[in-house]
Amino acid sequence: MVTFEEISPADFFYRNRDIAGFTSPSRAIFSSIRELVENSLDAADVASSPPQIYIRLSQEDAEETGLETGVYTLRIGDNGSGVPARHIPSAFGQVLFGSKYKLKQTRGTFGLGGTMAILYGQITTHKPVKVKSSTGTSKTYEYKLTIDIQRNRPIILDRKIHRNKKQWRGTIVEFSLEGDYFRAMPKILEYLKQTALVTPYANITFVDPRGRLYVFTRATTKMPPPPKETLPHPYGVDVETIQRLVCVTKFRNMLDFMHKHFHRVSENRARSFLEFAGISERKDPRKLKPHEIVKLVRMMKKFNGFFPPDASCLSPLGEELLKTGILKELKPEFIAVSQRNPATYSGHPFIVETAIAYGGEIPKKDDILVYRFANRIPLLYDEASDVSVRVIKSMNWRRYKVTPDMPIAILVHLCSTKVPYKTVGKEFIADRPEVKGEILNGIREVARQLQRFLTKKEYVQKEKRRLTIFSKYLPKIARFSTDLAGKEKEPNIEVLLGSVKKFEGEED
Amino acid sequence: MVTFEEISPADFFYRNRDIAGFTSPSRAIFSSIRELVENSLDAADVASSPPQIYIRLSQEDAEETGLETGVYTLRIGDNGSGVPARHIPSAFGQVLFGSKYKLKQTRGTFGLGGTMAILYGQITTHKPVKVKSSTGTSKTYEYKLTIDIQRNRPIILDRKIHRNKKQWRGTIVEFSLEGDYFRAMPKILEYLKQTALVTPYANITFVDPRGRLYVFTRATTKMPPPPKETLPHPYGVDVETIQRLVCVTKFRNMLDFMHKHFHRVSENRARSFLEFAGISERKDPRKLKPHEIVKLVRMMKKFNGFFPPDASCLSPLGEELLKTGILKELKPEFIAVSQRNPATYSGHPFIVETAIAYGGEIPKKDDILVYRFANRIPLLYDEASDVSVRVIKSMNWRRYKVTPDMPIAILVHLCSTKVPYKTVGKEFIADRPEVKGEILNGIREVARQLQRFLTKKEYVQKEKRRLTIFSKYLPKIARFSTDLAGKEKEPNIEVLLGSVKKFEGEED
Repeated sequence: MVTFEEISPADFFYRNRDIAGFTSPSRAIFSSIRELVENSLDAADVASSPPQIYIRLSQEDAEETGLETGVYTLRIGDNGSGVPARHIPSAFGQVLFGSKYKLKQTRGTFGLGGTMAILYGQITTHKPVKVKSSTGTSKTYEYKLTIDIQRNRPIILDRKIHRNKKQWRGTIVEFSLEGDYFRAMPKILEYLKQTALVTPYANITFVDPRGRLYVFTRATTKMPPPPKETLPHPYGVDVETIQRLVCVTKFRNMLDFMHKHFHRVSENRARSFLEFAGISERKDPRKLKPHEIVKLVRMMKKFNGFFPPDASCLSPLGEELLKTGILKELKPEFIAVSQRNPATYSGHPFIVETAIAYGGEIPKKDDILVYRFANRIPLLYDEASDVSVRVIKSMNWRRYKVTPDMPIAILVHLCSTKVPYKTVGKEFIADRPEVKGEILNGIREVARQLQRFLTKKEYVQKEKRRLTIFSKYLPKIARFSTDLAGKEKEPNIEVLLGSVKKFEGEED
Repeated sequence: MVTFEEISPADFFYRNRDIAGFTSPSRAIFSSIRELVENSLDAADVASSPPQIYIRLSQEDAEETGLETGVYTLRIGDNGSGVPARHIPSAFGQVLFGSKYKLKQTRGTFGLGGTMAILYGQITTHKPVKVKSSTGTSKTYEYKLTIDIQRNRPIILDRKIHRNKKQWRGTIVEFSLEGDYFRAMPKILEYLKQTALVTPYANITFVDPRGRLYVFTRATTKMPPPPKETLPHPYGVDVETIQRLVCVTKFRNMLDFMHKHFHRVSENRARSFLEFAGISERKDPRKLKPHEIVKLVRMMKKFNGFFPPDASCLSPLGEELLKTGILKELKPEFIAVSQRNPATYSGHPFIVETAIAYGGEIPKKDDILVYRFANRIPLLYDEASDVSVRVIKSMNWRRYKVTPDMPIAILVHLCSTKVPYKTVGKEFIADRPEVKGEILNGIREVARQLQRFLTKKEYVQKEKRRLTIFSKYLPKIARFSTDLAGKEKEPNIEVLLGSVKKFEGEED
């Protein structure tokens, strides 16, 4: 006797929360903090104001010490765009509801993370979440919610409206969860540190359960241009996308349909394409039959007259910001950065940025230190499975004069309208050939610059040693020669040394 | 201006189909076949009859050759338990609807796979799926369906009822999809081969687009006992689980509640636990307040008087079946198998089975050949990220007298009520400490047996060489000695050789 049943998406992710990054009590605390911080940073991008993020994790149950996991209250506040009142319950109390379903570069990807954190808190502590938010209007809204997991619906326990006298704008989320903070602590601090590295215009404050204060102060108020929403590209569509466009389009002819709904398709290009595809310009898109839609999609993929997606919708870090961040955090002796030209995979534009840092305060490790970022968020887990690490391991570093004992760090940042995450938990990036190729070329570029630096350094060292030898023996030779020649006065060594010196300031 | 919207789970997996294993045209064909084959095998388990599975992949568009991807029709038929008519539309046309939501060892895990395959077919070909099924009653039902992705609902285009004169029972699914068969072919054939290895009681027939027939004939009709549904274990519950039980329980006191709803909790044990937790036996579970539920869960995790989950609900392969399958497929010179005792992680019981095979027809490779299985399905992707491969790489194989050039294959099978997959695409198993530990011990066990074999083999080789040397020189020595001693008759070499022989049958 087989029972068939339906489960809600909340129930699905409840049962399979490993898939969303909530594998263990320590991982759950980490994932909760990261998901909410990323939401706050995205909200700051929308508001175009330098983020101010305050994170407080306090322990609830002092008497439970001795157990590995404790009950914590997590409170995160920001000054971002805020959530409109009517959307607050669903944004936090419903899975698969959110603002991340546009074609745009955002940190949050699946519209899951924040709600997953709250769901996890609920199933471990049975306590509701408190959300307070305002979009800068005259009112601030405060909700107390739980999630009906089986129906995937928020249950509103309480709602308050306050007058927003100071015209505050932002969101504060507070909920309780069971977790293992002390095991998670190193990863949480590393996460905040790396987030500060790539977001140097953000002020982030973290108060941990022991009352310790971690402050990451902004180094600049200059924000990069925010990412923009973009239209789908012809190379990246399928039958379903076209079907949906056809249902909602207000255009009544194929020429306008192609020209207005897709990225970088001018009227002329639309005209050439329709001719290639054998479709009349005047045809009403709503009259396309199923097999015609299939043919249209196939023609769109075949037609090589479309311009590749441009990356004007993307917001990479930029070489200056990369350098600033790395100098601030790692204090290396040498640094090289590179931003690749925009590329695409499956119709999605992406940009790879790489950096390599050597020496200074970089610790010596057995392996090269790798910092991975995607859409400005640090990736801290499953390093071995990540495409960047695979690329680095596949390179012949001796070619670049790098030996295993050298203190080296490599940074890779990928931004795209769709980061090819392998998992919902955003642990690592999958092996897409186009992405892999760009990462390889980006690392090679900065590795070459490092090689030139190391070669010169090696040369300078050689010259130093050579000069040291001269300094050591020349005086003796001078004296002996003087004696031999029966002269009284020794020649001036300094002049001689000066003539063999290749670089200024060689003596230490 | 931020737009908030809700998306359905079908829409979610449509937009993130990579996560479900539909990353590329070749992977999509592979995933479609594997998901439907796994559904058929699970259905055969339910029906307790040896599976008969027929797979036909035919190419639709002969004129599209030249392109890498083609349009295929995939048809899979089985003799399993069938799907009740009223559930057919949802089982195939709705995501997160299925029979896999019980606590039971099944191949299908997420209730997603089959519908994902059909969804993928729809978005690439715009064609409906045809499903024909009967549970062995007097009627057979035939549906033509599409999926309304935005609503996650099936759309029934046609429905026919036939008289089931032959009392057929089973399911036939047929749909079209775009894919790259030729790139997928090696993985598909490997998948079928490995499935046949661990399911030697199944008849599997595959007709590929070129009309080639691949038949995997059953070696036995003996089926292992099917997996059984089980109750949750006290160590594996959370607040949500208790809350749901409280809402549906028909028991009015905590003693019965604990005794009947959980795995291996006898009345006495329930009594001890309630005493430990400070909860009255007579308390009505429906009257538990939220903070009491939280306390109950915490106490259940703390109480160490519960028996660990037993594995009677699980259905491992068994040493005989493992040996049979490996001998049939790999024809090795030596084989060792091991089944570990049941263990648990997070309240889920699991059993690890390992096997090692050496020589014979096993190919020589740079690395050890690894076959990974979970709940009787082969795992063919992301080997490097899998816990078994990590364990194998971490072992010091010299200890076991294994050198890099030896032809060795290792097989690992994990069965559990919940396989800790890292991804919805079921590519590899995550690094759970308890699971990792059991796999390590299981491999060590069979490695030790291999070591003994290799040691003996080495010894036998040494003895052979020693005997060869004796055979070579003893006759000469005998003759010379005879001459020297002035004798006529040489001693009988055979007797001498026989006395130094250590093993029977040493000469080839």
